[in-house]
Amino acid sequence: MLTKCFENTKKSTPLVHCITNYVTVNDVANILIAGGASPVMSDEPKDVEDIVSLANGLYLNIGTLNSMSIEAMHVAGKKAKSLGKTILLDPVGAGASPLRTETALKIIDEIKPNIIRGNISEIKALAVGTGKTKGVDADISDAVCDENIENTIDFMKDFSCKTNSVIAVTGKIDLVTDGNTSYVIRNGVEEMSKITGTGCMLSAIATAYASANSDNITEAVATSVCLMGLAGEIAASKMAYDDGNATLRNKIIDAVYNMTSDVLSKGAKYEIR
Amino acid sequence: MLTKCFENTKKSTPLVHCITNYVTVNDVANILIAGGASPVMSDEPKDVEDIVSLANGLYLNIGTLNSMSIEAMHVAGKKAKSLGKTILLDPVGAGASPLRTETALKIIDEIKPNIIRGNISEIKALAVGTGKTKGVDADISDAVCDENIENTIDFMKDFSCKTNSVIAVTGKIDLVTDGNTSYVIRNGVEEMSKITGTGCMLSAIATAYASANSDNITEAVATSVCLMGLAGEIAASKMAYDDGNATLRNKIIDAVYNMTSDVLSKGAKYEIR
Amino acid sequence: MLTKCFENTKKSTPLVHCITNYVTVNDVANILIAGGASPVMSDEPKDVEDIVSLANGLYLNIGTLNSMSIEAMHVAGKKAKSLGKTILLDPVGAGASPLRTETALKIIDEIKPNIIRGNISEIKALAVGTGKTKGVDADISDAVCDENIENTIDFMKDFSCKTNSVIAVTGKIDLVTDGNTSYVIRNGVEEMSKITGTGCMLSAIATAYASANSDNITEAVATSVCLMGLAGEIAASKMAYDDGNATLRNKIIDAVYNMTSDVLSKGAKYEIR
Repeated sequence: MLTKCFENTKKSTPLVHCITNYVTVNDVANILIAGGASPVMSDEPKDVEDIVSLANGLYLNIGTLNSMSIEAMHVAGKKAKSLGKTILLDPVGAGASPLRTETALKIIDEIKPNIIRGNISEIKALAVGTGKTKGVDADISDAVCDENIENTIDFMKDFSCKTNSVIAVTGKIDLVTDGNTSYVIRNGVEEMSKITGTGCMLSAIATAYASANSDNITEAVATSVCLMGLAGEIAASKMAYDDGNATLRNKIIDAVYNMTSDVLSKGAKYEIR
Repeated sequence: MLTKCFENTKKSTPLVHCITNYVTVNDVANILIAGGASPVMSDEPKDVEDIVSLANGLYLNIGTLNSMSIEAMHVAGKKAKSLGKTILLDPVGAGASPLRTETALKIIDEIKPNIIRGNISEIKALAVGTGKTKGVDADISDAVCDENIENTIDFMKDFSCKTNSVIAVTGKIDLVTDGNTSYVIRNGVEEMSKITGTGCMLSAIATAYASANSDNITEAVATSVCLMGLAGEIAASKMAYDDGNATLRNKIIDAVYNMTSDVLSKGAKYEIR
Repeated sequence: MLTKCFENTKKSTPLVHCITNYVTVNDVANILIAGGASPVMSDEPKDVEDIVSLANGLYLNIGTLNSMSIEAMHVAGKKAKSLGKTILLDPVGAGASPLRTETALKIIDEIKPNIIRGNISEIKALAVGTGKTKGVDADISDAVCDENIENTIDFMKDFSCKTNSVIAVTGKIDLVTDGNTSYVIRNGVEEMSKITGTGCMLSAIATAYASANSDNITEAVATSVCLMGLAGEIAASKMAYDDGNATLRNKIIDAVYNMTSDVLSKGAKYEIR
């Protein structure tokens, strides 16, 4: 499966319209190119309908939301939906402030994104109102581990059915579900949490993969999660003793750039439940 | 010629006021420093008159335009013009949305930038209304090649005369013209299109070079195009098998940082027509 | 002293709310993580009270100020003050435009930040109205050197007493004072001025250190200044002949990531006056 999603993305060079935060936007653009997609950024409400009309997918990330970008997300989202484009929401910081939680919920309610990807605290905040988001990081007490994995998948399935979205929760263990098929993915390394933007980058790649594989979004999202985790593993394996998180960031993007379907299918660690 | 433009820039450390997109702004700042210039960013309409008054050049880039930055571009542009500062417009995404096309045309009409630099689709969209900009990338059907090079120079000359601006179109082959003298430049490598921001960075460098060589803007812009392409060649030649676009970006900025007038004049590949 | 401040920061992972410019924000986020802190960015006035309530410190940087971010700084600043959070102001470009100077002075007046860190021209502009800020860089005529060091400390002490803030001026020689205790710090290398954002990054790290050592802010700020300078020295020592400012930036962040209290206490070059 991974191979097909990977090849489709490389072949079709999906154009991804990003309305995303200004903290990690450069990494988002470069990793989209590395992954075979093409980025375009626009968050002016008067511009976004035209831009999203050219795009294959729309990536909404509320990391540095403001009144202009919130409006742009709604304008672009409605247009994208009406044209059948693939939409992904990354609810950065949901649970950390009412504005973030409410903005994410309103986008879910009105735009109905095809995919919602966040850390466990963010998704809990949206699904059950209890996520303890610490700024933009998940709270340790929310973490997914082998003991609570079934419960987590269950609540994600419920949220998926309620929203009609593919739900992806990433952390030490990554989970993707569409309510029926669920993926448990064990790629990635701890050090990835020491870079700003691994979540934002993954969400961008997931948008690209889902856009290029719109008949099989769940699998496409799971593939992108494996890809990003594997890129992290490859990057970490090439670190010198005096390298740090700046180098790791570059090496992750480079690893996505050099990924082959062969390396991906051999390195992906997932099970379907 | 290249040597003189290069030395003048290094010697005078031109201060370049950038109103540019938030995607590649950090690379723009670092490459300006690498090239011997000094960057200052300000896009608040109440701030830009004072900032541009201190600057030697003004760089306008509509990559993530919004109502505030459009206003700031006009306020800064008028002030810069009245003070005789060098102004460059990079019409990112012109042809991809009416807002982008109209904003670029209005800046050309009202501010009269000294230089307009874009990809072929953007420049076609502005000059003849037919560019097929794909997001922020040129459409393949617009590409400059040896077969259409004379025709392209001709329409660029017309556009240059109509706007009284130096026109620079970059891609596989780069062209610079002021209506009389035209440069055909063949530096650069394909991989440069795999990084976000090579165009934005070049425009910034071109602004710096033109500001430091305001009596010879065409030559200065051509020199900056050679410099950027050559930096790309040097960077690409130093890539390891597992390096990717993140590393290439860093190496391009580093290559500009380490450029000497000797290396530049030996490596530049241009002809004057 | 350095050791204690270093360890406290690593141990407590302070959450730093940043309202900062979009030029260097990614480096700010990554260096905060490298230094043991956790970043969260938010500049929407409706969001910042909630975000700063979760944070340990607030970092205000006016590098690309606009009407929205200025309002956000005041809203966040008042909330932070009322909750006893540590606040640092980086008055980027004060002296270069009235808007920047006035915005910085108003924040000092109304928010009363615990720390003000800038280059010498910025601090002079705020303290005595004579700084000749060149864009966002200090003017050479303002530079701190061994001949004027006592005079500089004196005016900084006055400014510290007037504002009740710790004042940090960084450049070739770095100075930190709270009006009583003053630190003269000689870490760092010239090449650090060839990267955009070393000042912004230092201010972020200083906010983290001060937040994690709120009973000893002066020492914490001095420690962070030593840390940043030493990271620059380590990074510069690892540069290959063809590396440039992009690589140096990455190596500085990596050096902060790999810093140990032992390396820091051995490498710090400071005297207390």
